[in-house]
Amino acid sequence: METLAAPASAKPTTVLRVAAFSGSVRQDSWHAGLIRAAEELCGEFIPGLQIDHVDISDLPMANPDLETDNGDGFPTEVESFRARVLAADCFLFASPEYNYSVTGSLKNALDWASRGSVKCWADKAAAIVCTGGDFGGGRGSLHLRQIGIYLDIHFINKPELHVRAFDDPPKFDAEGNLTDAKTRERLKKVLLSLQAFALRLQRNE
Amino acid sequence: METLAAPASAKPTTVLRVAAFSGSVRQDSWHAGLIRAAEELCGEFIPGLQIDHVDISDLPMANPDLETDNGDGFPTEVESFRARVLAADCFLFASPEYNYSVTGSLKNALDWASRGSVKCWADKAAAIVCTGGDFGGGRGSLHLRQIGIYLDIHFINKPELHVRAFDDPPKFDAEGNLTDAKTRERLKKVLLSLQAFALRLQRNE
Amino acid sequence: METLAAPASAKPTTVLRVAAFSGSVRQDSWHAGLIRAAEELCGEFIPGLQIDHVDISDLPMANPDLETDNGDGFPTEVESFRARVLAADCFLFASPEYNYSVTGSLKNALDWASRGSVKCWADKAAAIVCTGGDFGGGRGSLHLRQIGIYLDIHFINKPELHVRAFDDPPKFDAEGNLTDAKTRERLKKVLLSLQAFALRLQRNE
Amino acid sequence: METLAAPASAKPTTVLRVAAFSGSVRQDSWHAGLIRAAEELCGEFIPGLQIDHVDISDLPMANPDLETDNGDGFPTEVESFRARVLAADCFLFASPEYNYSVTGSLKNALDWASRGSVKCWADKAAAIVCTGGDFGGGRGSLHLRQIGIYLDIHFINKPELHVRAFDDPPKFDAEGNLTDAKTRERLKKVLLSLQAFALRLQRNE
Repeated sequence: METLAAPASAKPTTVLRVAAFSGSVRQDSWHAGLIRAAEELCGEFIPGLQIDHVDISDLPMANPDLETDNGDGFPTEVESFRARVLAADCFLFASPEYNYSVTGSLKNALDWASRGSVKCWADKAAAIVCTGGDFGGGRGSLHLRQIGIYLDIHFINKPELHVRAFDDPPKFDAEGNLTDAKTRERLKKVLLSLQAFALRLQRNE
Repeated sequence: METLAAPASAKPTTVLRVAAFSGSVRQDSWHAGLIRAAEELCGEFIPGLQIDHVDISDLPMANPDLETDNGDGFPTEVESFRARVLAADCFLFASPEYNYSVTGSLKNALDWASRGSVKCWADKAAAIVCTGGDFGGGRGSLHLRQIGIYLDIHFINKPELHVRAFDDPPKFDAEGNLTDAKTRERLKKVLLSLQAFALRLQRNE
Repeated sequence: METLAAPASAKPTTVLRVAAFSGSVRQDSWHAGLIRAAEELCGEFIPGLQIDHVDISDLPMANPDLETDNGDGFPTEVESFRARVLAADCFLFASPEYNYSVTGSLKNALDWASRGSVKCWADKAAAIVCTGGDFGGGRGSLHLRQIGIYLDIHFINKPELHVRAFDDPPKFDAEGNLTDAKTRERLKKVLLSLQAFALRLQRNE
Repeated sequence: METLAAPASAKPTTVLRVAAFSGSVRQDSWHAGLIRAAEELCGEFIPGLQIDHVDISDLPMANPDLETDNGDGFPTEVESFRARVLAADCFLFASPEYNYSVTGSLKNALDWASRGSVKCWADKAAAIVCTGGDFGGGRGSLHLRQIGIYLDIHFINKPELHVRAFDDPPKFDAEGNLTDAKTRERLKKVLLSLQAFALRLQRNE
């Protein structure tokens, strides 16, 4: 968290670093598209949030056998991943539903940053956004919330964003970019709620 | 499913193939140990079940971009994995709880065999066994059951086997072998229940 | 379960008794409407299923203090309710989602019939249908499935019926009667799947 | 929330009102015992928390047909219940696990206070404590957390208190009073965590 330079008359803006993860690792993932849209929205409208889009596709499978230093040493990609989780003030999960749960890739990333004596996720605010058929990916978000109990993540409750991708009008283009203005507006509200909740949690410390 | 040669006077025994998966990929995993114990128990006491211990550690991360043939072609390791899932009559999941859910490795394997037009998991019986601290891994098994709805897996309800590994007496040796006779007996009951349920589901077809 | 009289040339039809419960106790409940539609569908198309619409609104709150005979005696309404659960061959739950879970009324009924030494729910097939906004009531059905593990209920996996009641066209009239032909067709498929699964599970006794 | 009189030199203590609910309505409920223990602990050690033990046993079954005034009028017992929920600053749920979920009584109470235009639960902190066999009631607490998403309750993540009541030493006497000092100490830590989280969430108004 850093403080932006501000004119003497204005209250300085706290800038929260948001580590953002797409649970899908495919090239044209809608979920990566949601994160790109979040970056744009923060750039345009929410100076107090800065998105760090963290790629989770190159992590090895979580395996305690790969840990060194009595459980506090990790493979290079994992160390680098953990550092970005730890540096974040809060989290944005763009989490698709695969078979009524989160993806293996996302679960793997969550597990890696939960290991060792440094608890990278702990005591930070988070929001989940998802898209898909039927429930718009919503069953996966319920599992993610249960995972977050042990990780000690504080999820915002509202608003929820489960986008039914196959309903008219189309929501994404062929590269996975979010094209629907209404969904973009809903995403903006999620980001504002995340910001407000993260700031509330930081007070009185 | 094959039929064992049997003396003329005896009813031939149906042998069910049980694909068994350890959600942990570590070397001395207790969950691999549970599968080895299941193999021994079937060899000694349950001629109608034959365990196929399927390794899931070498699968790439599930990613539709790796699929070919309009979604029905897969990387070599995935093809081989899917073939063993498809060939099975029922399933045994030795599924540790990582952060209140299944492991990323297991979720990844579940997802790979759910892709394409051939539904490898569908309409087969399954059992879950787990071990760990606290709930003995039980929260993860609840997530696995929800995943199984969409995969169309029929889980046995009873008995459940959630072994609290840290309670006395010790349950596993340093190589992850199951050493506790009482737990072995409980595991045997799970296998017998799985067999009975799988046979019930195969009747009247 | 009884056997219908049948012409000598025909195989007699097994008639399964389906105890059906509406989780909502309001007068014009859509969920009671779903059960009435199921009754009509069975009458017209599925002679092998007979719906017993069980009212759960007059049960007292589940409370072990109301039990007598060392836990095997119950208040009159509870005895009568339990008898109908026990007499059923399988179950149809029309289960609305209240606050992301099942209703208190349904949970209360489930709990009453789980008490005592006679396990009224155990080892029977069941299906869940629901309607509502957003996920069509689907989050509640996930909780109901978890409850069913301990009760030893075998839920069908497919098809699922979560009806988004507020999408066009209208699904119910003002008295809660199902008026949408497409939803009626989906409900019929659920009933046929329930019938098939219940028959598969029946022992050859 | 009120402010205690304090010597001029000391910072006044904010006293948070904690509405506490036992999900069990039996006379000698362990869960009512947990709430009595919480009252004692607050009286002795935590002046900033004041427990309001709210009885939920006399509520009628939640039923929108009983609502008047366009959904904002309720039966007398419900009005009184809702007023106490609304007046609370945070919540303590002593929630037993019945059949892998919360009790019908607790769900019913949760639902009543969620109705109408005044959202009684919204945006407040809460903690869950439970006791029982096996998982110590923990599966029910997972369902309660999912219910809380829609109610907009902010649950503390840690510490969790799932007491295995049947393990030695005994935890409760015949009237349901908590007698185990270690469990009492754990309960105290839950209360302190609830207090800290509720204070963090309070707006600077």
